[in-house]
Amino acid sequence: MATVVTFEGKRKTPSLEPLLSLCADDMAQVDREILARMRSPVALIPELANHLVGAGGKRMRPLLTVAAARLCGYTATDDRHIKLATCVEFIHSATLLHDDVVDVSALRRGKPSANAVWGDKASVLVGDFLFTRSFELMVDVGSLDILGVLSRASSTIAEGEVLQLVTQRDISTPEATYLEVIKAKTAKLFAAAAEVGAMVAGRDGPERVALESFGMNLGIAFQLVDDVLDYGGKAAKLGKNIGDDFREGKITLPVVLAFRRGNDGERKFWVKALERGEIGDSDLDHAIGLMTKHRALEDTVSRARHYGAIAKDALALFPGSTMKQALEEAVEFCITRTH
Amino acid sequence: MATVVTFEGKRKTPSLEPLLSLCADDMAQVDREILARMRSPVALIPELANHLVGAGGKRMRPLLTVAAARLCGYTATDDRHIKLATCVEFIHSATLLHDDVVDVSALRRGKPSANAVWGDKASVLVGDFLFTRSFELMVDVGSLDILGVLSRASSTIAEGEVLQLVTQRDISTPEATYLEVIKAKTAKLFAAAAEVGAMVAGRDGPERVALESFGMNLGIAFQLVDDVLDYGGKAAKLGKNIGDDFREGKITLPVVLAFRRGNDGERKFWVKALERGEIGDSDLDHAIGLMTKHRALEDTVSRARHYGAIAKDALALFPGSTMKQALEEAVEFCITRTH
Repeated sequence: MATVVTFEGKRKTPSLEPLLSLCADDMAQVDREILARMRSPVALIPELANHLVGAGGKRMRPLLTVAAARLCGYTATDDRHIKLATCVEFIHSATLLHDDVVDVSALRRGKPSANAVWGDKASVLVGDFLFTRSFELMVDVGSLDILGVLSRASSTIAEGEVLQLVTQRDISTPEATYLEVIKAKTAKLFAAAAEVGAMVAGRDGPERVALESFGMNLGIAFQLVDDVLDYGGKAAKLGKNIGDDFREGKITLPVVLAFRRGNDGERKFWVKALERGEIGDSDLDHAIGLMTKHRALEDTVSRARHYGAIAKDALALFPGSTMKQALEEAVEFCITRTH
Repeated sequence: MATVVTFEGKRKTPSLEPLLSLCADDMAQVDREILARMRSPVALIPELANHLVGAGGKRMRPLLTVAAARLCGYTATDDRHIKLATCVEFIHSATLLHDDVVDVSALRRGKPSANAVWGDKASVLVGDFLFTRSFELMVDVGSLDILGVLSRASSTIAEGEVLQLVTQRDISTPEATYLEVIKAKTAKLFAAAAEVGAMVAGRDGPERVALESFGMNLGIAFQLVDDVLDYGGKAAKLGKNIGDDFREGKITLPVVLAFRRGNDGERKFWVKALERGEIGDSDLDHAIGLMTKHRALEDTVSRARHYGAIAKDALALFPGSTMKQALEEAVEFCITRTH
């Protein structure tokens, strides 16, 4: 387990708490804005949206937006940073709703997924609603530059989702393509979330560039660890089914590494399980065994650590502050997290 | 069959041709822009999008945008009106892709629907891609006011789709709720398409209001006739399956009227067919018979005529021109169209 050194020189487990605590007031406002913006005379919309968005989760992405804004000295008394954070969470939530339909997932954050409760149709349409609502929020904020960043991010996410669908069950997917997928479908929104925080604070120069890089690299690290957790012992705490990716034939880095490092017999196993989807009772255990043998999970975490280091270095131009320290610790948390 | 009086005093069948011909150059540019903006390194995206968007259809909505801009004297040499028209078509196409998933449709414009060819997953995700691409286009145009109109329209469409899903198979849906659904899911985009045409031409006053009203009322008329065609003899030419709405349990105005005007036995039939989805071989014919008996199809067309008249009156403040006349004829065409 990695550790961080506190001001007092003590080592402790990295946590998201310092960041959450510094942003507590802003995030309470984000929660209120989320609820207000989900309102609709069509009752199914707030009902379903609330199941997902209202249920919380870590709210990593909006947290990045308000933290980036505050790191950049945002002190305006308006609520543009709150609107942007809400907008980012809505984009993320819309993606989750559509993801669960595409992946035929039954669980999300340990609860039945929205599509399992209300059906695919409602999930597709309420996802669309959240997407469009997020654009209304952006327009409210009134900056064309910010609209440009978030609309490009949304477009990239959608493109990444299609790319992921195309590479699904293709065991020959190279590491580079995998990286492209997670950059597009996950890291780009982390990047945009942090970038617009700088922009709303009026820091359009090096701080904006730095926070975009911080978000991008943090996002890559976050997704790499997520992909490890899908095969890892700590996943139960995540409230997700261990082995979801395996059953869905998703080609993630642990699989890419285990396949490439495997012998002929092992490769046949991967082809059978992931490309043909022929999975027996003990196959998940066998897959995890092969990953352990080839250090595929460890090395995926090492890759995550690499991107985490870049993320932290991106913050170098900011003077020392509790917020900067909290963001650095958030990177460590993402790499060592259990949930 | 309704007729229009030409300059020469002759009566002829209303056609979309005059409008298409006046807008031919602009629409050729729209076609090129559509193709250019569908490009993606992820091959499935242009492939699937081209199946739908590239295949044409009437392109009513982008046609409204360029026609409205020209009616308002748009003469700028930039291509903002083209971008907006493309944007409107992408919003529409995204909606169609998601609609077909929600409706489990096998045909669209007489061809196998995208979800029937590539599957629901790809349709959901490529729909998302087109949605986000449309927002990138809007941002390119660079007007926050226009962004406001189109983002609100998108949000209303999504809300209308959910409302339609909720009222599906509810035979007690009142006419007012039906009207609310078609305003939101169809007419609002017609309205926005025409409105942004005025805006891009710098006519933010009465012309903008007039064209918004023109689009809204034309859109309502258009959808009413669409709903008639789903039960009507001319539907085969539309390339859609007659009776799709019936089989899907969609509560459209012909059904609302036939149900309300029916006796107890007839109402039991509607409940069985539409609410419980128990449909036998001859039930569609029986439904059409009941609609004929109660003049439900004729009266739905009468309603369409009412909204069409309002649409035409909305154009009153524009001086006479071939474009104005072509738009008026387009209204007649939408009401009397066979395809």
